[in-house]
Amino acid sequence: MKRGELLYEGKAKKIYLTDNPQQVWVAYKDDATAYNAQKRGSIQDKGKWNNRISARLFQFLGEKGVEHHFLKEISATEQLVRRVTIIPLEVLVRNISAGTLANRLGIEEGRRFARPVVEICYKNDELGDPLITEDHIAAIELATDEQVTQMKEIALKVNELLSEQMDRCGITLVDFKLEFGIDGDGRLLLADEISPDTCRFWDKESGKRLDKDRFRRDLGDVEEAYHEIWSRLGGETHV
Amino acid sequence: MKRGELLYEGKAKKIYLTDNPQQVWVAYKDDATAYNAQKRGSIQDKGKWNNRISARLFQFLGEKGVEHHFLKEISATEQLVRRVTIIPLEVLVRNISAGTLANRLGIEEGRRFARPVVEICYKNDELGDPLITEDHIAAIELATDEQVTQMKEIALKVNELLSEQMDRCGITLVDFKLEFGIDGDGRLLLADEISPDTCRFWDKESGKRLDKDRFRRDLGDVEEAYHEIWSRLGGETHV
Ligand SMILES: Nc1ncnc2c1ncn2[C@@H]1O[C@H](COP(=O)(O)OP(=O)(O)O)[C@@H](O)[C@H]1O
Ligand SMILES: Nc1ncnc2c1ncn2[C@@H]1O[C@H](COP(=O)(O)OP(=O)(O)O)[C@@H](O)[C@H]1O
Ligand SMILES: [Mg+2]
Ligand SMILES: [Mg+2]
Repeated sequence: MKRGELLYEGKAKKIYLTDNPQQVWVAYKDDATAYNAQKRGSIQDKGKWNNRISARLFQFLGEKGVEHHFLKEISATEQLVRRVTIIPLEVLVRNISAGTLANRLGIEEGRRFARPVVEICYKNDELGDPLITEDHIAAIELATDEQVTQMKEIALKVNELLSEQMDRCGITLVDFKLEFGIDGDGRLLLADEISPDTCRFWDKESGKRLDKDRFRRDLGDVEEAYHEIWSRLGGETHV
Repeated sequence: MKRGELLYEGKAKKIYLTDNPQQVWVAYKDDATAYNAQKRGSIQDKGKWNNRISARLFQFLGEKGVEHHFLKEISATEQLVRRVTIIPLEVLVRNISAGTLANRLGIEEGRRFARPVVEICYKNDELGDPLITEDHIAAIELATDEQVTQMKEIALKVNELLSEQMDRCGITLVDFKLEFGIDGDGRLLLADEISPDTCRFWDKESGKRLDKDRFRRDLGDVEEAYHEIWSRLGGETHV
């Protein structure tokens, strides 16, 4: 496997071509951004922890029947994944009120919902990743109705699996964001990353936030939180 | 019928009690606000035109089987309606892109959608009437799932009826906002107003805006636009 040309660089990862047109090489960065990139910084070793955490969680979900892009780890901060065309939607699942949802609805953080709340945002940095509806998605043809139905179903399934798994590690899964894409064979795959950058993880006992909110809100112990999630998942370096 | 105590004063109307607990007295004001009340002003005779236009459109919809709150006109600027408990949701139907939808999706104004786009906003001035989803509505119990289904159905029916009717008057119905409430007998009724304050009306020939956008965007001829809508609907003073 050879690392080829840089395909694109995002806020948290670089994506490189490989000699296999169906696969891309993902390099996780330490760069951190928040609030639509208005806040910028760096979190030491974030690339390493997120690469590992993401790899482990994709593997776990794969074992439970969720189709995803992850193939294998290449180095501490790099992984090989199936290349997909990303559907420009962010699918969020929320079990407990926090962040923009709490602000939008004018409610406190920490309220557990009777059933999970699914939100879909338009992945568009210029527009600030706005919340949109299924009617909007159809109106400007961001995805087919069937894809939306499938993504929501998978997201709810991921929520069940991940909530249980994190619970076993002493962590409450508050909410998370998923991205999906279509691979060269036309399959809809869970893609991007699943990490403390894209999930809210609260320690079950203390309620301590073990995710990007520590960076967003300048709560300190940022690196430690990412490392802590990795440890709770079983740790052990393997690449 | 006697006008009683002021029940509440909104941005565009005052609502008074009457000697019938099932009915309230609505006085339409000339006050105009936009952009979550950051822009304020007054539009001469708006109260009169909106009172008349609303009355006529409710009557028209009633003849077509839509259940609504309107009972009768009292004066040029006042009408009697059934008292309802307003469900704090704004149901929008959009046939053509404009305003906040165009901004949210980053598209130009004036694009006709393959099918109408329904949006629901949380009627909450402090929060700026944010777009919300059916999951949000259920999560914080703003309405039952059944009410939401019913409101969307009625809104789409109103869209069909009103689009046709306005078309006959040489006007394109671009979008509109509805409010619903529950009356003393537990019935879900279309309430509030239907006017150039709450609809986008474009002249079919010239595309000229004949609605509150003239005020929002300082386009001039504001009073004339409201009067024009009344004339197109057949005019004639009757109270
Ligand atoms: N399997 C994949 N194939 C192609 N692109 C992917 C894949 N997984 C994720 N991406 C995309 O890689 C880009 C870089 O990731 P990231 O740095 O997180 O970007 P962003 O700044 O958009 O959050 C994103 O656009 C993401 O959607
Ligand atoms: N039939 C009704 N019974 C009780 N309240 C009503 C009825 N129709 C409308 N209302 C409410 O009257 C209030 C005054 O109207 P308006 O001035 O348009 O208020 P706003 O500032 O909220 O737009 C609004 O809260 C509206 O929802
Ligand atoms: Mg990203
Ligand atoms: Mg109003």
